[in-house]
Amino acid sequence: MAAVELVEVWRGGLLESVHRGHAVVVDAGGEVVMAWGDPEAIIFPRSSSKMVQALPLLESGAADAMGLTEDRLALACASHQGAAMHTQRVSAWLSELGLAESDLRCGSHMPSDRPTAETLVRAGERPCQIHNNCSGKHAGFLTLTRHLGAGPEYVEIDHPVQQAVRAAFEETTDETSAGWGVDGCSAPNFAGTLAGLARSMASFASAGSRSGARAQAQQRLTAAMIAYPELVAGEGRACTDLMRACEGRAAIKTGAEGVFVAILPEQGFGVALKIADGATRASEATIAAILSRLGVLEAGHPVVQRLTAGVQRNWRGMETGRIVTLV
Amino acid sequence: MAAVELVEVWRGGLLESVHRGHAVVVDAGGEVVMAWGDPEAIIFPRSSSKMVQALPLLESGAADAMGLTEDRLALACASHQGAAMHTQRVSAWLSELGLAESDLRCGSHMPSDRPTAETLVRAGERPCQIHNNCSGKHAGFLTLTRHLGAGPEYVEIDHPVQQAVRAAFEETTDETSAGWGVDGCSAPNFAGTLAGLARSMASFASAGSRSGARAQAQQRLTAAMIAYPELVAGEGRACTDLMRACEGRAAIKTGAEGVFVAILPEQGFGVALKIADGATRASEATIAAILSRLGVLEAGHPVVQRLTAGVQRNWRGMETGRIVTLV
Repeated sequence: MAAVELVEVWRGGLLESVHRGHAVVVDAGGEVVMAWGDPEAIIFPRSSSKMVQALPLLESGAADAMGLTEDRLALACASHQGAAMHTQRVSAWLSELGLAESDLRCGSHMPSDRPTAETLVRAGERPCQIHNNCSGKHAGFLTLTRHLGAGPEYVEIDHPVQQAVRAAFEETTDETSAGWGVDGCSAPNFAGTLAGLARSMASFASAGSRSGARAQAQQRLTAAMIAYPELVAGEGRACTDLMRACEGRAAIKTGAEGVFVAILPEQGFGVALKIADGATRASEATIAAILSRLGVLEAGHPVVQRLTAGVQRNWRGMETGRIVTLV
Repeated sequence: MAAVELVEVWRGGLLESVHRGHAVVVDAGGEVVMAWGDPEAIIFPRSSSKMVQALPLLESGAADAMGLTEDRLALACASHQGAAMHTQRVSAWLSELGLAESDLRCGSHMPSDRPTAETLVRAGERPCQIHNNCSGKHAGFLTLTRHLGAGPEYVEIDHPVQQAVRAAFEETTDETSAGWGVDGCSAPNFAGTLAGLARSMASFASAGSRSGARAQAQQRLTAAMIAYPELVAGEGRACTDLMRACEGRAAIKTGAEGVFVAILPEQGFGVALKIADGATRASEATIAAILSRLGVLEAGHPVVQRLTAGVQRNWRGMETGRIVTLV
């Protein structure tokens, strides 16, 4: 099934651009509740699967052995902006592991938190791997590596950490992964169907009705994300703003190339969407529209209005157009 | 006719994202030579129409009355990076007009030239309107405004400058504009068919075989862009790199939301393309592929290779995937 039009961008009363994609909502039993486009489309979840990548950290007992606090669990699931609240926590975490920045394998990039980036520029300093948006996830990988007594190259596909991640991905999506690629942060990223990713999110959402190490880990990670929305992304970011607006009714996570997922514990629903062209403006608008349709967000909430009926303004603040969602 | 797939983005042996769009090549007689998708699709050319917006500046005699040098003609057609070579020229131009930065109506944004942006941050300074990528076009608008003795609000739709731009757009596209919107720089942007935009570019490309003020203006603007590729965009930018690689055989210009055009004087061809979702990575890859197909660029040229078969690397320099063009 082809991707369908999900978001339009208008200017001067004319349609200027359009984004196509796939979206699906599944219930606790894995049944499709709503769908747009093709739920069986094969996608890379990218960073939207960080909660799945964090499961072995908890299920193995590594998190408790290290006494990881809830804010660190949120950071393990984060694509953070590299602000002080993120980097200081990751630095302290690495210190407690007896590890250094050089033990990370995520690479360095300028933090997207603008004040932090400007401070680095003013000081004539380069960003380090702790500024990488995935550094919390990697601190989690290192914690598990230590617990397992495994080797330092924890992003290699045959490393015990990544094999445990693959198992968690395949078990919660309830399918064999379609393959894997190297993510921006160098970790393997496992591909699967969009419906599979939604089933994985539904298994997090419905974990309260199950028992066992997995269900407990899923509940704790969901609760950590909801408790620390600012650690999962950062000030002004869609994930953070949407989680705050949902007031505890959803854990929400984006992934590169137009992916978004949501865990809705009250309904036991999992949501997953992929914009075919990879555009963030479209994935943000679509997740906000779907959350609003599902009743976990008020349609009139300022964040929903901003993302789904987004007035586009130019450098002088003039209205130039609008984003319109079609879901 | 629907948009067709023009660019694929691969990761780990799987298709991760896809960009659809329309592209057309027309000859000097306005006949379609090659087409992908729908040549009759209505689009906003955005900054790709800057050469058309600069026509009244020359045809009116304003450019010669002010003694505008060829580098300023290139800047009138530019979406520049706000580097010193751009801003110093625009500042001097405004001074010679007896005008100030505050007479511009383009708004301010951080220059995309990174050293210039970092210098501003270090100095604790804010960017001004001269840093706006459109400031050269606006200096041209102000020059024409002065020549016509018109009022200062030169970006209003009924201002004589914009009415002259509309006439130039409709005459060179050989169609009535489908409407207009406000561009990022606050100037009106006239919409039309993709084929119309390509016809306009072909009229620039074939101007050497015609006489009169328009043909002369078209030849001069094309020559100015080819003579100063670094002023039209900037170091490292696709427009600049592609024009250099074409060694005088093409004037090339991008526009926001996935637009690219090219003027090919040797063939008398005009090229126009629009990526439906507005993605720059896809518009850059597609224009490079079309220019290569048309023989104005070697398929093996490093710039073509970079843009059309672009290896995607992550923060540690690992290859994560590839961009593939389908034209």
